[in-house]
Amino acid sequence: MAKVKKTPRPKAVTPKGFRDYFGSEVTQRAEMLGKIAEVYHRYGFDALETSAVETVEALGKFLPDVDRPNEGVFAWEEDADWLALRYDMTAPLARVYAQYRNDLPTPYRRYAMGPVWRNEKPGPGRFRQFYQCDADTVGAPSVAADAEICAMLADTLEAVGIERGDYIIRVNNRKVLNGVMEVAGILDPEDPSKFEAERGIVLRAIDKLDRLGVEGVRALLGKGREDESGDFTKGAGLTEAQVRVLVAFLLAKEKVQERVDAALSVAKKQNADFDGRLQSYSGHNNVVVDIESVPPLGYPTMFMMSYLTELVEGSTIGLDGVWELGQIAALTIGLGYNPDRIVIDPSVVRGLGYYTGPVYEAELTFEIKDEKGRPRSFGSVAGGGRYDDLVKRFTGQEVPATGVSIGVDRLLAALDYKEKERLRLAGEKPKLPPGPVVVTVMDRDRMADYQQMVAELRNPYDGGDPIRAEVYLGNPKNFGNQMKYADKRNSPIAIIQGGDEHAAGKVQIKDLILGAQIAENATLEEWKDRPSQIEVDRADLVAEVRKMLDGQG
Amino acid sequence: MAKVKKTPRPKAVTPKGFRDYFGSEVTQRAEMLGKIAEVYHRYGFDALETSAVETVEALGKFLPDVDRPNEGVFAWEEDADWLALRYDMTAPLARVYAQYRNDLPTPYRRYAMGPVWRNEKPGPGRFRQFYQCDADTVGAPSVAADAEICAMLADTLEAVGIERGDYIIRVNNRKVLNGVMEVAGILDPEDPSKFEAERGIVLRAIDKLDRLGVEGVRALLGKGREDESGDFTKGAGLTEAQVRVLVAFLLAKEKVQERVDAALSVAKKQNADFDGRLQSYSGHNNVVVDIESVPPLGYPTMFMMSYLTELVEGSTIGLDGVWELGQIAALTIGLGYNPDRIVIDPSVVRGLGYYTGPVYEAELTFEIKDEKGRPRSFGSVAGGGRYDDLVKRFTGQEVPATGVSIGVDRLLAALDYKEKERLRLAGEKPKLPPGPVVVTVMDRDRMADYQQMVAELRNPYDGGDPIRAEVYLGNPKNFGNQMKYADKRNSPIAIIQGGDEHAAGKVQIKDLILGAQIAENATLEEWKDRPSQIEVDRADLVAEVRKMLDGQG
Repeated sequence: MAKVKKTPRPKAVTPKGFRDYFGSEVTQRAEMLGKIAEVYHRYGFDALETSAVETVEALGKFLPDVDRPNEGVFAWEEDADWLALRYDMTAPLARVYAQYRNDLPTPYRRYAMGPVWRNEKPGPGRFRQFYQCDADTVGAPSVAADAEICAMLADTLEAVGIERGDYIIRVNNRKVLNGVMEVAGILDPEDPSKFEAERGIVLRAIDKLDRLGVEGVRALLGKGREDESGDFTKGAGLTEAQVRVLVAFLLAKEKVQERVDAALSVAKKQNADFDGRLQSYSGHNNVVVDIESVPPLGYPTMFMMSYLTELVEGSTIGLDGVWELGQIAALTIGLGYNPDRIVIDPSVVRGLGYYTGPVYEAELTFEIKDEKGRPRSFGSVAGGGRYDDLVKRFTGQEVPATGVSIGVDRLLAALDYKEKERLRLAGEKPKLPPGPVVVTVMDRDRMADYQQMVAELRNPYDGGDPIRAEVYLGNPKNFGNQMKYADKRNSPIAIIQGGDEHAAGKVQIKDLILGAQIAENATLEEWKDRPSQIEVDRADLVAEVRKMLDGQG
Repeated sequence: MAKVKKTPRPKAVTPKGFRDYFGSEVTQRAEMLGKIAEVYHRYGFDALETSAVETVEALGKFLPDVDRPNEGVFAWEEDADWLALRYDMTAPLARVYAQYRNDLPTPYRRYAMGPVWRNEKPGPGRFRQFYQCDADTVGAPSVAADAEICAMLADTLEAVGIERGDYIIRVNNRKVLNGVMEVAGILDPEDPSKFEAERGIVLRAIDKLDRLGVEGVRALLGKGREDESGDFTKGAGLTEAQVRVLVAFLLAKEKVQERVDAALSVAKKQNADFDGRLQSYSGHNNVVVDIESVPPLGYPTMFMMSYLTELVEGSTIGLDGVWELGQIAALTIGLGYNPDRIVIDPSVVRGLGYYTGPVYEAELTFEIKDEKGRPRSFGSVAGGGRYDDLVKRFTGQEVPATGVSIGVDRLLAALDYKEKERLRLAGEKPKLPPGPVVVTVMDRDRMADYQQMVAELRNPYDGGDPIRAEVYLGNPKNFGNQMKYADKRNSPIAIIQGGDEHAAGKVQIKDLILGAQIAENATLEEWKDRPSQIEVDRADLVAEVRKMLDGQG
């Protein structure tokens, strides 16, 4: 006789690269998103929630030219359509703006928050579903829109608890880099298809500046570079003169700092009066950028503008980029966001190919230790920029747009790190969020009495704040299990009422926090006193629990 | 020469059955979910957020035995695994509890809110992505857990703004219906596989009670039924005696009401003193259920218990079910949730096959008009019950669980309906949520000045509440477009500062709400006064805007 094959039990696991969030992990994120939404809303941004699912066609980047277009997205075929989970909030925004452009206000400021999905190889701390929180302005050509988003980003970081001085927002402009490449002769505005290979090598080399240093990058821009292992990477083959332009760009921050230091030392010697306005630069388009700020703060911006102007002279697009940066600096400094919060920094090269103008990113500057114990700054938690071509895909008309995306999980991790650091410095132990008051069950036939107690705690007659409370709903036979449960729930207080107390109209209130402290430090003698448990009149339950909670602080 | 084929532009559309949510649609839902979470949390429930994606194996209901297991879910193959979007919050909870059962407290009270996805034919108001908001208690065998969830559901509905009297929570027990079917001889507890076809017909017939009436159902339970068109539906073929048992069950509410009316009329005649306790019934398991409530309110419950007890006498499972219902009634009435809020109602037959004990649903009772203008009650907005077998799939061990799911979109629609009704009765017009104060741009070179104004409004120096504000970021050339924009944004106020005002240190504040009212009722004479616009000192901008906003109410 054939054996009946049993269906094997399903495995209780999350799919690879996905995870679950419990309790305060959920509520802390919700709280942070609420604070961010509050700032975005105050700036005039309206909420938008698109569905998680889009057509692959609308998402754009990933076309169904293969059997399954699963490069980077989760996609599937449905009634002859390819559908996919959104991989960011920007592509759906472009679709929405194209779809509803006649009904939406122009400019359209919108914010969106929610999960996005990436079909990428998961790694430590790298998940296939994660939260983004975006704000974008569609239909605003002016860099005032970019400046506004940078200012809003600063307000947002402070609203969620990042202190001033712990973050910096760096602003650059794609056009400046393009201008530098034009001056270096590897970008022809008349024919952008020329020198594409060279520009690719240059961009990858710039991206390696941190690791290879200027000399390493210089080699990669020229003939090539041999690493320690003897492997040779072929270079872009640029001439000395070309390399010089690009390296001057790479050294912008150092060079500008030298000029600032020199100017400050002169000013100091002259005991200069810094009152009045300083013109940062004048030249291109007859535009004068006024930097109304204390000059020593304005110096770095002023010299950076001037340095970049020199660099891209001869490139219209480059000068346009510098002019836009000057505008952003003037607007943000004018609003009181000095360069210690929002700074022009030509080293910002954000990855996404679709940026066309200003790009910006927020970095948290406080030091943490990396895996090898070396100090490094926490790093980027938000980034964005101007992408003027995304809506055009749908409508054929160019629609200017700019926006920022906050990496919600990174920002939460940063806040968590800061809080732990604060506790460590204060010599305090990390506190779990307090659990509910647990009403234990001594007599299972009196469940109605115990339910009555939690009901009173949750909706106090005295009109006071509700107290989080629950009755133990497991098997009440073993009282020890009930106390273990209260412990697992991190309950501050347990309520106990056996038959005797019930008959006498009394109830026991057990201070579990004091109890734990006593257990930690107790001698046997002290235990006998059990001062952590008090008996009170049943009628005083809510008042006495509230008093004990207040005492626990 | 072959023509170069251009890639056609992608269509800017949401996939079929999906939709976008704008502005207040998003924030009103978030606000409601926040209020619900507050109640759930107060009851001791902890947040849980699982990922949107699960393995098809873990979701369970839909096995990959076909090429694409797309029955009801959105699923796709990924590295030899079938993945799917969750179709509810219960299946992921069962997976999570099985996966983390050693770390989670037992019982585990959790809430979850978020979108779920169903691969079903979309229809009017029926979408493939929608929100659910669930609370479940896992590991609590006692019906006290069911009673608690019913009480919490009542608190939740009131917390979001459904008034007492506008909702009713109906409670039934699957075991009672099973008991009735056992008594009717179509359920054999020793061999549940017997009479499956008959039970199927009976359940479908009961579900049609509303439409067909008792006589129609009676026909379907017996030989069959001919409808108006002459079509004949074959019946379950039950005997007269069998049919009588089932119909007695269907008539429970009417029969009980007759008894209540009779008892009340006797009591009235006797001018009875209703003080003291009434025993609702005693019998099964020697359990006495005390209903501590004003007796006339207790009568319906008392008579219902007694009626059901008579019906299922002879069925152990049936009596067990009635006993559980009595417990739930006693616990909820004991907490003050009288049968005008939580009521035992044997007509509740919730669809899902996995319920094993108490089932409950919340209905909004206020009247609305259906598509044909006929009055009907708003209907169900939440439902749930006990499902003791879901975790067993994973672990082999039975884990008792019970929980409720709120249909978020239905509940939002109900609140919206009530608000519109309130406005209609008060003779008020529905108000759009107010938009931001719009600072117009008269001189594009003074963008910094305009940005300064919005910055002051958003972060007032005077320490007052922030005022939502934005500067117009479109092309400022046409001032009419700026006013149209403010109109589209539903802005209450526009700020205007041209060159003259700037030179004089003044600013214009335009009351757009008063302006619209004047425009609606105005004669030409009135227009000339233009009292809706005032000129104030630039320094008083924030104070004057605040004053005007307060005046608008």
